[in-house]
Amino acid sequence: MARKIILDCDPGHDDAIALLLAHGHPDIELLAVTTVAGNQTLEKVTRNALAVAEVAGITGVRFAAGSPRPLVRELEIADVLHGDTGMDGPTLPDPTMRVEDQHAVNLIIELVMSHPADTITLVPTGALTNIALAARLEPRIVDRVHEVVLMGGGHSEGNWGPKSEFNIVVDPEAAHIVFDAPWQVTMCGLDVTHQALATDDVIDRIAAVGTRPAAFVTELLHFFTTTYAHTQGFAAPPVHDPVAVARVIDPSVVQTVPVPIEVELTGTLTRGMTVADFRHPRDPESHTHAAMELDHAKFWDLVVTALELIGDPARRSTE
Amino acid sequence: MARKIILDCDPGHDDAIALLLAHGHPDIELLAVTTVAGNQTLEKVTRNALAVAEVAGITGVRFAAGSPRPLVRELEIADVLHGDTGMDGPTLPDPTMRVEDQHAVNLIIELVMSHPADTITLVPTGALTNIALAARLEPRIVDRVHEVVLMGGGHSEGNWGPKSEFNIVVDPEAAHIVFDAPWQVTMCGLDVTHQALATDDVIDRIAAVGTRPAAFVTELLHFFTTTYAHTQGFAAPPVHDPVAVARVIDPSVVQTVPVPIEVELTGTLTRGMTVADFRHPRDPESHTHAAMELDHAKFWDLVVTALELIGDPARRSTE
Amino acid sequence: MARKIILDCDPGHDDAIALLLAHGHPDIELLAVTTVAGNQTLEKVTRNALAVAEVAGITGVRFAAGSPRPLVRELEIADVLHGDTGMDGPTLPDPTMRVEDQHAVNLIIELVMSHPADTITLVPTGALTNIALAARLEPRIVDRVHEVVLMGGGHSEGNWGPKSEFNIVVDPEAAHIVFDAPWQVTMCGLDVTHQALATDDVIDRIAAVGTRPAAFVTELLHFFTTTYAHTQGFAAPPVHDPVAVARVIDPSVVQTVPVPIEVELTGTLTRGMTVADFRHPRDPESHTHAAMELDHAKFWDLVVTALELIGDPARRSTE
Amino acid sequence: MARKIILDCDPGHDDAIALLLAHGHPDIELLAVTTVAGNQTLEKVTRNALAVAEVAGITGVRFAAGSPRPLVRELEIADVLHGDTGMDGPTLPDPTMRVEDQHAVNLIIELVMSHPADTITLVPTGALTNIALAARLEPRIVDRVHEVVLMGGGHSEGNWGPKSEFNIVVDPEAAHIVFDAPWQVTMCGLDVTHQALATDDVIDRIAAVGTRPAAFVTELLHFFTTTYAHTQGFAAPPVHDPVAVARVIDPSVVQTVPVPIEVELTGTLTRGMTVADFRHPRDPESHTHAAMELDHAKFWDLVVTALELIGDPARRSTE
Repeated sequence: MARKIILDCDPGHDDAIALLLAHGHPDIELLAVTTVAGNQTLEKVTRNALAVAEVAGITGVRFAAGSPRPLVRELEIADVLHGDTGMDGPTLPDPTMRVEDQHAVNLIIELVMSHPADTITLVPTGALTNIALAARLEPRIVDRVHEVVLMGGGHSEGNWGPKSEFNIVVDPEAAHIVFDAPWQVTMCGLDVTHQALATDDVIDRIAAVGTRPAAFVTELLHFFTTTYAHTQGFAAPPVHDPVAVARVIDPSVVQTVPVPIEVELTGTLTRGMTVADFRHPRDPESHTHAAMELDHAKFWDLVVTALELIGDPARRSTE
Repeated sequence: MARKIILDCDPGHDDAIALLLAHGHPDIELLAVTTVAGNQTLEKVTRNALAVAEVAGITGVRFAAGSPRPLVRELEIADVLHGDTGMDGPTLPDPTMRVEDQHAVNLIIELVMSHPADTITLVPTGALTNIALAARLEPRIVDRVHEVVLMGGGHSEGNWGPKSEFNIVVDPEAAHIVFDAPWQVTMCGLDVTHQALATDDVIDRIAAVGTRPAAFVTELLHFFTTTYAHTQGFAAPPVHDPVAVARVIDPSVVQTVPVPIEVELTGTLTRGMTVADFRHPRDPESHTHAAMELDHAKFWDLVVTALELIGDPARRSTE
Repeated sequence: MARKIILDCDPGHDDAIALLLAHGHPDIELLAVTTVAGNQTLEKVTRNALAVAEVAGITGVRFAAGSPRPLVRELEIADVLHGDTGMDGPTLPDPTMRVEDQHAVNLIIELVMSHPADTITLVPTGALTNIALAARLEPRIVDRVHEVVLMGGGHSEGNWGPKSEFNIVVDPEAAHIVFDAPWQVTMCGLDVTHQALATDDVIDRIAAVGTRPAAFVTELLHFFTTTYAHTQGFAAPPVHDPVAVARVIDPSVVQTVPVPIEVELTGTLTRGMTVADFRHPRDPESHTHAAMELDHAKFWDLVVTALELIGDPARRSTE
Repeated sequence: MARKIILDCDPGHDDAIALLLAHGHPDIELLAVTTVAGNQTLEKVTRNALAVAEVAGITGVRFAAGSPRPLVRELEIADVLHGDTGMDGPTLPDPTMRVEDQHAVNLIIELVMSHPADTITLVPTGALTNIALAARLEPRIVDRVHEVVLMGGGHSEGNWGPKSEFNIVVDPEAAHIVFDAPWQVTMCGLDVTHQALATDDVIDRIAAVGTRPAAFVTELLHFFTTTYAHTQGFAAPPVHDPVAVARVIDPSVVQTVPVPIEVELTGTLTRGMTVADFRHPRDPESHTHAAMELDHAKFWDLVVTALELIGDPARRSTE
């Protein structure tokens, strides 16, 4: 049975691919896409989410815009990686879909409270502002959500600080709220997403799908290759966000371990670090889980499969 | 013309008196009472708010329960001052009114967005969790609210830490959000509320009103006298929260100065301190204002007037 | 009997006057002058201390240079107040005295350990780096020192931060060490030193002494008047450092109260704040003491008396 | 040519073995042993250092006691690992040697300043209090020391906190001073010392040396095996401190990389963490170096060689 998810994202090149994976793969039922400021401003990432929907011919999915800024600290964007639009590279189509009037937080609450308990998985791939606000505004969602599988953090590497990752460091207080709440949280952090490299052969496979959405993805990846090479010295860009979706589709793609994880809120060098405590004795019942290892081949197989299933919506609609 | 206010509170002895003042004084139009965990748990302070409504015969005012805990840190309650019920002393009547189904945050947003801009004053007398969540969930309220007049903080004294006050220290991140947003914020802190002492002559005046609500207040004040004497060495208890309401009724009761105020979020000794910067050159256009001086006589006159106008609702209803 | 003191300073206009007061007043026996980086670099403040010795004809006092930088944080200087030399205004004579070879910390330890216990008062008027290092290198001095009477901090005002004072904020960890050690510490902070204003009549009285040292002081005060007016909006400059010396000469000049004082080491807004806890119940046996009130007239009388007794060393030596 | 070192330690089981390695191996010239509070109180670790000297027949090495407490925070000891004496297990002989009168800090300064520049290596295996104080009291040692090779910290693991190591967390401010000073610092952290396991075959090899010092070591290791199994779940105990000495003897035993390392001073979860920044672009000229890999066989070969060369001093002296 397909997993019902809400994708909370800030497209963002890798968010776009996460959205395509969630839309295209039959083991996911994408209920809603909610947006949050992060990689770019809320306005831009929301426009980008709708543009991806346009490219992929997504219908029947609810869209809502959420938080324009973090809970406590000022917004910092990642235009150095994602460009001025937040999704530089391909030409972005004008979206025909619109976001709902209500705030993403209210849509998340509505969906979780109206579906049976334990059926919805939250998949945040941006700052955790919306999820945190939802948990504070309607604490009952914490019991009703099946699990939270997020892209963010890491237990050994950093990208926005020596040991801190962008999605967490942008809104550490929101991240604290999410990691601290007693639901199941799986952190797909840099330890695994830095293994999700879009190497040349991966890009070639995607190009070979031969559809407009696949071409869109290769254009995204070419831009991402350049900015990751310049800013972080990667030979091939890490494609973070689809890893969380892949984990929901097939847990064997991402190996995890239960381990207590807390967010550092006050460090001078470490603010926004996700501090995993691997020391003895480790609690096997920990509600937080750290991703340790990625099955690179399986991961990209899922992405290619999704793109193949998405096909070419524009062509189809004109036939 | 009466000022429209929303009273966001955690009754609490002094919150109860603030509510009676807001209800009874003709220069206030009390639109809603919203509750927040602080002096006691959300359940208890909400029950207490409704009990005060019962005592005072309040009708036509909307009530909603809000946040059961602070944004980031764990809840700390002030039962050492307010007792196990949160309003120990008088016998609390069973309330006949009920809170609305919706969250206090949504009620605040609804009221501010549905009334003309610049007409509603927020009067928080507890932790600022609800107000902060409302500002994050609907940022447009920041422009639409007339002003925020709050009880909390202070520029020179502390009660829950050497320099920090309970309402702020309970939820410093929420306080940061409220003080940082660009609306007008008037901080009625310990500098003035420690002048709002319920001395014996004050209690005698209130008792002389001779009504059930007045007797209720004197019972509250007798309990408060005891706990403040024991815990903080006061000869007469400071009655904090009505000071904020009094400031709205008659600004001359509380002298203020514009001064930048920020909330310390990371100090070891000072977390939750409201740091007012009185150094030269001081910005006369500061959107935050510190209360400096209380007109003790005028303040208690307002409270007595309100109680006299409230009269004896129970007796009235049986006539 | 005259009080034996070691003056640990960073001249600095007001340090210079503190040194003249300590040298000139018969109730002080000045054993040594040690220097520490703060108002300016160690090299400059040491040269300035020797220049003041030259002006005042000081002999028989030991001089040693100490710490060129704070314990933990990087050095920040106050050239905005004290100018490029650290003592701008008067022409500074070439000193004939020299500092000893040994580090100020070792001189402090040597003097305290070689004199009878409870006979030496430390009077720091700069960053507390030297005193802290001495206490860590030879912990026995903590029991042997009579008391520490320092200029720094304050319980309600700040100058280098909203609530923090320069001498403390320059080296908060050193200040922590000094306030935390179980000796008697009297903090002459901004609460009293902002009362030690060099008003026009004060400057006139000093000028009227008619000696070269007195002229030197008026030249210092004229410069100080200008920088304090520009940077902190004072009509007359506060002359901080001699207040600590005055307190040693005559305790009635500076009223103090015992109160726990700790140094905030981690606050974002309050790092380096001296947090005095005036809350009930206050420990009457506290080893830290906050200065509350200055006797302005007595204070300046002491300074003028000292200058009169110093007379005109240069003229005297040529007679 | 043998490397001249000063071993600054807090014996401590592994410190004892580090001392034996430094004494016994011909490629080290042990100039002095200085002690610092950490694993146990200063009194106990100093007594232990002298006891090891007694066991190993050490003569001609200078001993001095240093800091009884960290610079800023209160002392925390590791008796849970090292027992009540700080070196539980073997019977400790009464030492015949005595420490010098002077403070360890002064001995360190004296040795570094009196030897040719670039000839002395500091090998701290405890809290960095003494080294930090020496660098502050005589900043010229920073240029004169050949390098600092320390046991402490780590870039991925923790033992006293999720990501922090005991020697650093005991005195983070001292560690900051040492890592921040512009000398060469090699951090032999938990990443490599958790590879320095005293497995059964290692203990058997040491026992086979057949001398009293070797028996002393096996007795230490048996105790250490027990406490490390109980507290940290190790099958064989990590023997941290000799790794730093081994690195000085033969750099190939410990592979290192240059990487910026800073000490977190303010984190709630991470205070005392050594934050290594491996992000791109990494400075190849970094003055701090992180140990990455241990050659386990070579490491224990060095220890066994040293014990063989030490022989049986007691037996020898009676011949």
